[in-house]
Amino acid sequence: MVVELSKKVKKIGEDDPRRIAHSFKVGLALTLVSVFYYVTPLFDGFGVSSMWAVLTVVVIMEYTVGGTLSKGLNRAIATLVGGALGVAAHQIAVLCGEKGEPIILGLFVFILAAAATFSRFIPEIKARYDYGVTIFILTFSLVAVSSYRVDELMQLALQRVSTIVVGVATCLCTSIFVFPVWAGEDLHKLVAADLEKLANFLEGLSTEYFAEKGEVENLESKSFLQVYISVLNSKPTEDSLMSLARWEPGHGRFWFRHPWKQYLRIGALSRQCAFSMDALATYITTYPNFMPSSDPDLHLKIRKTCQEMSSESAKALRELSSSIRAMTVPSLASRHASTVVATVRKLEDVLSEGNAMSDVLHLATIASLLTQ
Amino acid sequence: MVVELSKKVKKIGEDDPRRIAHSFKVGLALTLVSVFYYVTPLFDGFGVSSMWAVLTVVVIMEYTVGGTLSKGLNRAIATLVGGALGVAAHQIAVLCGEKGEPIILGLFVFILAAAATFSRFIPEIKARYDYGVTIFILTFSLVAVSSYRVDELMQLALQRVSTIVVGVATCLCTSIFVFPVWAGEDLHKLVAADLEKLANFLEGLSTEYFAEKGEVENLESKSFLQVYISVLNSKPTEDSLMSLARWEPGHGRFWFRHPWKQYLRIGALSRQCAFSMDALATYITTYPNFMPSSDPDLHLKIRKTCQEMSSESAKALRELSSSIRAMTVPSLASRHASTVVATVRKLEDVLSEGNAMSDVLHLATIASLLTQ
Repeated sequence: MVVELSKKVKKIGEDDPRRIAHSFKVGLALTLVSVFYYVTPLFDGFGVSSMWAVLTVVVIMEYTVGGTLSKGLNRAIATLVGGALGVAAHQIAVLCGEKGEPIILGLFVFILAAAATFSRFIPEIKARYDYGVTIFILTFSLVAVSSYRVDELMQLALQRVSTIVVGVATCLCTSIFVFPVWAGEDLHKLVAADLEKLANFLEGLSTEYFAEKGEVENLESKSFLQVYISVLNSKPTEDSLMSLARWEPGHGRFWFRHPWKQYLRIGALSRQCAFSMDALATYITTYPNFMPSSDPDLHLKIRKTCQEMSSESAKALRELSSSIRAMTVPSLASRHASTVVATVRKLEDVLSEGNAMSDVLHLATIASLLTQ
Repeated sequence: MVVELSKKVKKIGEDDPRRIAHSFKVGLALTLVSVFYYVTPLFDGFGVSSMWAVLTVVVIMEYTVGGTLSKGLNRAIATLVGGALGVAAHQIAVLCGEKGEPIILGLFVFILAAAATFSRFIPEIKARYDYGVTIFILTFSLVAVSSYRVDELMQLALQRVSTIVVGVATCLCTSIFVFPVWAGEDLHKLVAADLEKLANFLEGLSTEYFAEKGEVENLESKSFLQVYISVLNSKPTEDSLMSLARWEPGHGRFWFRHPWKQYLRIGALSRQCAFSMDALATYITTYPNFMPSSDPDLHLKIRKTCQEMSSESAKALRELSSSIRAMTVPSLASRHASTVVATVRKLEDVLSEGNAMSDVLHLATIASLLTQ
């Protein structure tokens, strides 16, 4: 049990050493922020509220810079708005006298909490401000409710906001300046890697399946048949990375307002491509011996064309992937793609055959990739 | 702008009225818990800590019962463990004297925060206890850090734990007894609905495509070609519903420890099925006029068999879907499935043809569904 666990832990660390760095970053940020508690002059300035700085650090420190930024900004702004509304609600409630105050406050909390919760079902808000709305409800309720007992409301509110700002600033500094993990960069690499995987599949198809003269042995064990599978389920990862990347400031080769949405489009096209590869792979493994043909000459001809087609498609995809990495305009890719088109024509002349469908799809994909 | 927004809001409410109920439930729970603040005898018992009950309600109140339960239990247990360790850390640090205390405390916070953050990368912990680990770090840091300034640590800790328990209890009562939303039931319905969608596709294929004598007009506008698309991306929803459903106690027709994992397997098979439908649909729309055949007799024969095949597959899937809904053993479905097998044989005799591949896949899917 313990050995297994430690092996697993080691593997997680080795897979992505940035995870270890992240763990230490959280520890560092927490320790930094707790200095406010230990150093007497600082403590006297903020009081018990400095507890809120600790809380903020724990809650908003995320793996990527975009995550920390989005949570931090959400939290800071939502706290401000919620706190201000809470104070306003308190002022109104006071007007209603001793007896009416808790009732009015309760009513306010009920209405605002219900409305804000409902707003979380709106997709646009859910995607970008979900956390902010939670914090808004939280701060508003806390301020409105505790205003019934606390006398120096304004001072309390100011202390709390300033400590939260301290917490957010600590997190941002740690996550931007100490081994930053950029969601945008991850997205960029993921999309390029996915295209490369598709290219590997097609290459494997060309060299290990179509190139074989006779029966293909151990087809199911070939690694190229597995390589595209992770692409099928890449959507959730891409979506979340994209929404984080939008929050990030410019860094490295990416400017602020980098067209992150384009990556999602490429991602969607790669997935479509992977779907048809899935169908193709199932077809190949179900009927492993190509088609028992009555005409060996025709058979060879089809096989030859298919091989050429998939190897050219692979080249085009690989070219696209490396041009994404280098952020240049793909020039060679369009040549490969046109070779593919020509080969498809040739194949269509030879015979309209099952495999063509999948490769036509690849083509459509490549073509639309190129138009971007 | 405003009109658009209000239309959107209305639509969201109409799509699932439980969302409105949920919003009111959150308001209700918050108002209930703030009673602790307004009623003087209750307030004297808990003190300012009752603020934590409000905080707990805002943070753990989730849309489904499973979500609330998992967050509530995570929070309660993590607070207990984190608080206990925090007190222990305080006791050790006190031994090191006035000067050493903040250093030792800082060291403890750093190590535990880093270790706990790292543990969040382990998939099993991420899936079920992610929130708990966050709260653990939070409570531990708060207790350990504030122990440096607060004298009556134990009393504070006890107050806090009891208010959190009050918060969790309020949330659970509201979410279980007031219009409960069960993640398990949603999962159950989603899986059945997905199978039904696949059946609709096949039925549409049979009646609107294969049944047509001549050219099929307006093929792209046919609704059956869109019906399976939502199934392609159902994985994230299913996964999250499953992980929530595992936390739920028995309810309605579902016992505790209902085999929720089986739903994921059915879901995965439906998705595979939808992938091949996607390939099939692309094929159909790319070559809308079936295959220009030199042999009209053969053409008609193939078309007939395909029609029979897809309509029988549709019946089998529909049967499976309704037997999932009713939670009975599918009996008719296996008969339909065997008809499909027979028809496929017949088709294979006629000609080994492109479409067969996709339907063979459907078959494999149906067969594996039946073995469950």
